[in-house]
Amino acid sequence: MFSIPSVISELVIPPLDEAAMKAVQQRLDALAKPQGSLGRLETLAVQLAGIQGRSTPKAAPAAVAVMAGDHGVTAEGVSAYPSEVTAQMVYNFLRGGAAINVFSRQMGARVYVVDVGVKEKLVVDPNQDDFFDRKISFGTANMTVEPAMTPEQATAAIEVGMEIARRVVADGAQVLAVGEMGIGNSTAAVALVCALHNHAPAEITGRGTGVDDSGLLRKISAIERALERHAPDPKEPFHVLCAVGGLEIAAMAGYVIQAAHLRRPVVIDGLISTSAALVAVHLCPAVRNYLIPSHLSQEPLHAIMLKHLELSPLLHIDMRLGEGTGAVLALPLLEAAVNMLTQMATFSEAGVSTRDK
Amino acid sequence: MFSIPSVISELVIPPLDEAAMKAVQQRLDALAKPQGSLGRLETLAVQLAGIQGRSTPKAAPAAVAVMAGDHGVTAEGVSAYPSEVTAQMVYNFLRGGAAINVFSRQMGARVYVVDVGVKEKLVVDPNQDDFFDRKISFGTANMTVEPAMTPEQATAAIEVGMEIARRVVADGAQVLAVGEMGIGNSTAAVALVCALHNHAPAEITGRGTGVDDSGLLRKISAIERALERHAPDPKEPFHVLCAVGGLEIAAMAGYVIQAAHLRRPVVIDGLISTSAALVAVHLCPAVRNYLIPSHLSQEPLHAIMLKHLELSPLLHIDMRLGEGTGAVLALPLLEAAVNMLTQMATFSEAGVSTRDK
Repeated sequence: MFSIPSVISELVIPPLDEAAMKAVQQRLDALAKPQGSLGRLETLAVQLAGIQGRSTPKAAPAAVAVMAGDHGVTAEGVSAYPSEVTAQMVYNFLRGGAAINVFSRQMGARVYVVDVGVKEKLVVDPNQDDFFDRKISFGTANMTVEPAMTPEQATAAIEVGMEIARRVVADGAQVLAVGEMGIGNSTAAVALVCALHNHAPAEITGRGTGVDDSGLLRKISAIERALERHAPDPKEPFHVLCAVGGLEIAAMAGYVIQAAHLRRPVVIDGLISTSAALVAVHLCPAVRNYLIPSHLSQEPLHAIMLKHLELSPLLHIDMRLGEGTGAVLALPLLEAAVNMLTQMATFSEAGVSTRDK
Repeated sequence: MFSIPSVISELVIPPLDEAAMKAVQQRLDALAKPQGSLGRLETLAVQLAGIQGRSTPKAAPAAVAVMAGDHGVTAEGVSAYPSEVTAQMVYNFLRGGAAINVFSRQMGARVYVVDVGVKEKLVVDPNQDDFFDRKISFGTANMTVEPAMTPEQATAAIEVGMEIARRVVADGAQVLAVGEMGIGNSTAAVALVCALHNHAPAEITGRGTGVDDSGLLRKISAIERALERHAPDPKEPFHVLCAVGGLEIAAMAGYVIQAAHLRRPVVIDGLISTSAALVAVHLCPAVRNYLIPSHLSQEPLHAIMLKHLELSPLLHIDMRLGEGTGAVLALPLLEAAVNMLTQMATFSEAGVSTRDK
């Protein structure tokens, strides 16, 4: 019943292209700079080449998919904001007034907004660009009393994410960023990580959008009760996802997996999208190589998640907003990695002495 | 003899504009996001407003000044590269093939290249844009046998930096980044920090562009001998600068101080430019508020320097190239901070419920 859905288990994730990576490394070592001195830009260039399977990788165009869904667990008083904010923020995304719109315009990234499970029925102009009504249900169930999603719902949400990744790639994107909106979803993210890696909720639960002390205690209690009720086995990641995940989290996991299948890098964002990436890696370990971290969230749990993924964040800017904002802010570094490769002079072109001289 | 030059001591550094900062903070708290959730972008927006003295600060246009100078201490075998690389890299900058050119083109920053003390006589087309021949001497003296600079040379180098900052601002720059090129200058940077903050060279000396083990020992020994010979008093920062600094470091210090006088933020780069900023703050403590950190260098000493300056780096990308590359890579974050302020919808504009509802 909780076996990994065939849409995932039957998908082929190609290995990184070793020849392309080697060609990039050789060029990097010929550029007029001390070897390795451009640090993460160099490893990003190599990774992009391996993912895309070409020695001149591309960092543009980029796109960001923002998956929106609500959470039944908000009934337990786990969030500082009411569920209706999810829908309100989706409208804000569609009007272009949210942080993710502002940063995506700056970075030249196209924004795709997806309703996977917003509690409210959204009324959207049918001519609205890049909005996808893929609502599976009006929010998840309350994880403290029943599984957040049925296996059918979780599978459908994963498939939504996969569809969006295909669409974004068909529209031309070379780099796929991912983000989300969903009041209550930091509770789901914490629960997922606790279940997958045997952490105690009291030790790793943070304040999300900013609950007060009593809200934090309610949040910890809700996660503890949900984990006790469902007792999900870390070896059954799909069960974990159904029990304590979220529709937008499942969609992001599907998006990550499909992007890897299509040889596209996925830039992850903060706490929630990283929890989705963690789920994706548990469902399909080969996607790990396709992930690119962006920022380190203010939420202490984010560092723990990234450590599980063996990813080291590029930006240390103390954000905790979500929406994909951190992922999009990291895009100029990917572009810089490609520009370094294609525009910098080599030692011989520049007539610069090497250290061996 | 080693009193702080009057060009610095007589310069007025304006305090940050509290009213502009308050206006920005109020706007930030009205934007449709949890308060403080955009972290460092929010504090950057406030700082920019305070520096520029306006509630809608500007992050563009930006410029980067690359100060070049050689170091007599290279005679001690402290660097993996020969001194001639300094001149070769300046030519590379002028042809647009270096990393700083590539990243500056991407970020829309204008590059100014300044010869403050390159060992070689540079032959540059008189029509070359944005190159400044301000050579004070053909490199510094060897700090292990005499002071790196006379007080007159150090003062002249500071004045070069001040002139360049005035020029860059006159050309329209709102944000000033700074970088450098100078074989041997990580030896000078380490020596400066040891002298100013009483560190032992053996504990904080790194490999710079990548010296081997025996080179590292020579580097430590050279710094130890220089500090023993000159015994500079940390309370006499100008003496410290003359004894173990560099022409390009002095120029960067002057640039930082002049930028602050002109109410412009200065984005510092890695080990060397940060040592210059440290010198600038010792010479003129009020400039501290005008500094914006960028990346954290691979060199462990960089974190120590930034701690002395109470600055926390934005980018963790393991670079150690210099030239101003890290500073320029951080520019999109400053632009994002301004865009956040000017383009994001407020709670009321977006019709989003606040947490108090």
